[in-house]
Amino acid sequence: MKKSERNEIIEKLTQIGKDVIQAVERSEIPKIEIPSRTTSNIVYDPEYLCYVIGDKKVKRSAGNIRHIRRLAQLLRVARFCKEEMQKSLRHTTKRELYYISESWEKGLKFDEQVESDNIIEDIEAMIGRPREDFRIIPNPRGSIYGDITLRYTTPKGDVKEVNCLDTPDGQAIGPRISEAEIIDCKADKVIAIETSGMYNRLMEEGAYHKFNAILVNLEGQASRATRRMIKRIHELLEIPVYIFTDGDPWGLHIAMVIMAGSAKSAHINRQLATPDAKWIGVTASDIKNYKLRSDKLKEVDYKRIKELSKDPRYKKDERLKKELELWKNLGKKAEQQALLRYGFEYVVEKYLPTKFKELG
Amino acid sequence: MKKSERNEIIEKLTQIGKDVIQAVERSEIPKIEIPSRTTSNIVYDPEYLCYVIGDKKVKRSAGNIRHIRRLAQLLRVARFCKEEMQKSLRHTTKRELYYISESWEKGLKFDEQVESDNIIEDIEAMIGRPREDFRIIPNPRGSIYGDITLRYTTPKGDVKEVNCLDTPDGQAIGPRISEAEIIDCKADKVIAIETSGMYNRLMEEGAYHKFNAILVNLEGQASRATRRMIKRIHELLEIPVYIFTDGDPWGLHIAMVIMAGSAKSAHINRQLATPDAKWIGVTASDIKNYKLRSDKLKEVDYKRIKELSKDPRYKKDERLKKELELWKNLGKKAEQQALLRYGFEYVVEKYLPTKFKELG
Repeated sequence: MKKSERNEIIEKLTQIGKDVIQAVERSEIPKIEIPSRTTSNIVYDPEYLCYVIGDKKVKRSAGNIRHIRRLAQLLRVARFCKEEMQKSLRHTTKRELYYISESWEKGLKFDEQVESDNIIEDIEAMIGRPREDFRIIPNPRGSIYGDITLRYTTPKGDVKEVNCLDTPDGQAIGPRISEAEIIDCKADKVIAIETSGMYNRLMEEGAYHKFNAILVNLEGQASRATRRMIKRIHELLEIPVYIFTDGDPWGLHIAMVIMAGSAKSAHINRQLATPDAKWIGVTASDIKNYKLRSDKLKEVDYKRIKELSKDPRYKKDERLKKELELWKNLGKKAEQQALLRYGFEYVVEKYLPTKFKELG
Repeated sequence: MKKSERNEIIEKLTQIGKDVIQAVERSEIPKIEIPSRTTSNIVYDPEYLCYVIGDKKVKRSAGNIRHIRRLAQLLRVARFCKEEMQKSLRHTTKRELYYISESWEKGLKFDEQVESDNIIEDIEAMIGRPREDFRIIPNPRGSIYGDITLRYTTPKGDVKEVNCLDTPDGQAIGPRISEAEIIDCKADKVIAIETSGMYNRLMEEGAYHKFNAILVNLEGQASRATRRMIKRIHELLEIPVYIFTDGDPWGLHIAMVIMAGSAKSAHINRQLATPDAKWIGVTASDIKNYKLRSDKLKEVDYKRIKELSKDPRYKKDERLKKELELWKNLGKKAEQQALLRYGFEYVVEKYLPTKFKELG
């Protein structure tokens, strides 16, 4: 993260407190407004192709006895985040924040972790930034391998560089890599992969140099840090992103969450989504065309297809609509490893080149 | 992995086939013997403090029509592993092996993945080596951070070195790191940590230089590759291993599996266990002494304590026995992050130094 970006976030966190102080100085009752995160305020943005948060706000007023504790706690958390960003290089987990609160002023201590978790999401919505940006971090999940050089700060405070080809098993997308500056990249595309097995396969078959690609291991549903990383690489370097999943509606949905965000993160989807990303497959058509070993769709898969068919994000894309329909008719699903019936190399020698041609 | 070690494994895999050929040449009916992995053949080794496999063997004979397919499949899998180790740098997942079998000779194809998985365990038991050693790899879980330099082979075949302090968010223990040679290490102890949050905390509070330690992130229950890595570091460098978990019977059991292996891996426990490793806590006594915020033990926790109390691995250790008893009486459990009530630094400034003194 650049210094200017960090300062902007510190500024926004500070502003939450300043607004309260200014109200007091004007002899007004302090209140804050938080964009509402209830289902009724989640709307579909047809332009950005993702769910975003609407205009409804929740008010917390110091004049309301039922609001006052939560208002004070929100201010305290915002102050904590601001101060840590100013004085240290620390990243805090949600769980740590909950325990740290025990050392705070009386009455601010949280009774349950869900309370502090909620306040963190409130702050995300208020400043329009995912919590990673104010250093409340999730467990790392996902890694990256390819010819991209990142400049990061070590826990000790040294500034170093790492090329992601120099990490034997791929570079974990943890707090330091998430914030690293991209300073050089020779690759001209990103391939994001659902399973660790296929990620390793593409590493070992040399997909990163054959396709001049950055490989991203999603490890299932992509974590927010990974989605963020993909978006940053895509926007900064202006290179295409391809998503390679298992051949079932769940795999397609993993791709969709990268493209359009999830409903749960509606308040920050614009910061996380990569609407231009392209889903490679394994598609329902692939199962047919490549004669892949498949399993029968289960009740839960059919239910999922039905849900997705109703989702506005799928309605706009003829290809996705067609594939959902075909899945239903075919009644089958396949794992991405099923391509190995044609040998280890097939996926890089035939399958992916055909796909890149097809998808452009 | 050293070349001599690799050759030894290739030799063992080859021997499985050679025995069959020799039987045929002697005009005998070929059969193989596999150490039985059923519960009745799992015994406790009081010397090594772990469960190991007993002397019972399962015979598969080419003279028995019900055995012949599985016998042939086992030989085919052993051949596959041997050939890949000879001619390539590839690592294969269990799932990949299942699909690869589709391209094999007729009749050898597996109907379900559970069949090929079972054969892989048979081979593990036969040659007394975890499957990672013949390059059938699990999903990577766990990472390592500290002043240790490893020599590894890239997917392209280049031999490189990496110091695990130079990986911003810790070095994932994937297939290449698992096999890497340890060529230098300045650290004089290992601290294995249950949660990613506490691993990051110890990184950020400088535990690796304050204690001259290698930090290992277990990410919950330690994966086999991580247990293997801990054992290798411990034995090769002769440095102590400490395990730092949540303060509940599940955390203690995570430590125990590192020390003594699991029942499921009885056939390879001697290759995975580090009997000298020491459990730091969070102990039941810590919850009391440090006045940690705690939750009530649930029914399932009490059940677990009861199970563990009967387990011979716990019976020998007075300290563990006492802690299990105290948990039951206290009726409480705590997360390792609960120590943060005393601030970020407490865990490295007070808690861990006290523990190292206590445990020696």
